[in-house]
Amino acid sequence: MSHRSTPEHVHPDDVPVLEAFAALADPVRLQLVRELAASEDWSRSCGTFDVPVGKAALSHHFAVLRSTGLIEQRDAGAKRVNRLRRPEFDRRFPGLLDLALREE
Amino acid sequence: MSHRSTPEHVHPDDVPVLEAFAALADPVRLQLVRELAASEDWSRSCGTFDVPVGKAALSHHFAVLRSTGLIEQRDAGAKRVNRLRRPEFDRRFPGLLDLALREE
Repeated sequence: MSHRSTPEHVHPDDVPVLEAFAALADPVRLQLVRELAASEDWSRSCGTFDVPVGKAALSHHFAVLRSTGLIEQRDAGAKRVNRLRRPEFDRRFPGLLDLALREE
Repeated sequence: MSHRSTPEHVHPDDVPVLEAFAALADPVRLQLVRELAASEDWSRSCGTFDVPVGKAALSHHFAVLRSTGLIEQRDAGAKRVNRLRRPEFDRRFPGLLDLALREE
């Protein structure tokens, strides 16, 4: 994916719990979060996730994850790489990511 | 509200985490859950909640809460009364209701 501008982020501390629930109430976003949790920070670019959606939808899902404090992104050359904001999200919503990442 | 048949319930143990998040990712349902948490079990009939929706929408929201293991309902004469399934939901999804009920 190409990216024209630096991504804007929202810190988890500024996210209402309703939005946190909504961000995680989607199978594609839950999969993105789970794959990120299993990966090194900044090791995954946006095109490397195993989700059945097109580029526009994927871009929307990443935007939701950014705007709800779940991920941080930065551009590295032509790629945009990702980090799950686990410590800061856990401080804001204790236990929520644990539930999202649990085996079912 | 009038109800034709006994309500069907789903136990929290049979609810995927994605559905639990989705159930709580709605402002009306979150309000219903919060009011129930502040009320005695079985003290609240469906028409007594302070939510800005019509009867059909309210009925849908209660159905979602039932099907995700969040509430139990029973008919008491012409009224349908409610109970938050807090202990069993807490066992299945530790900490999730605490987040939903937290002051923001």
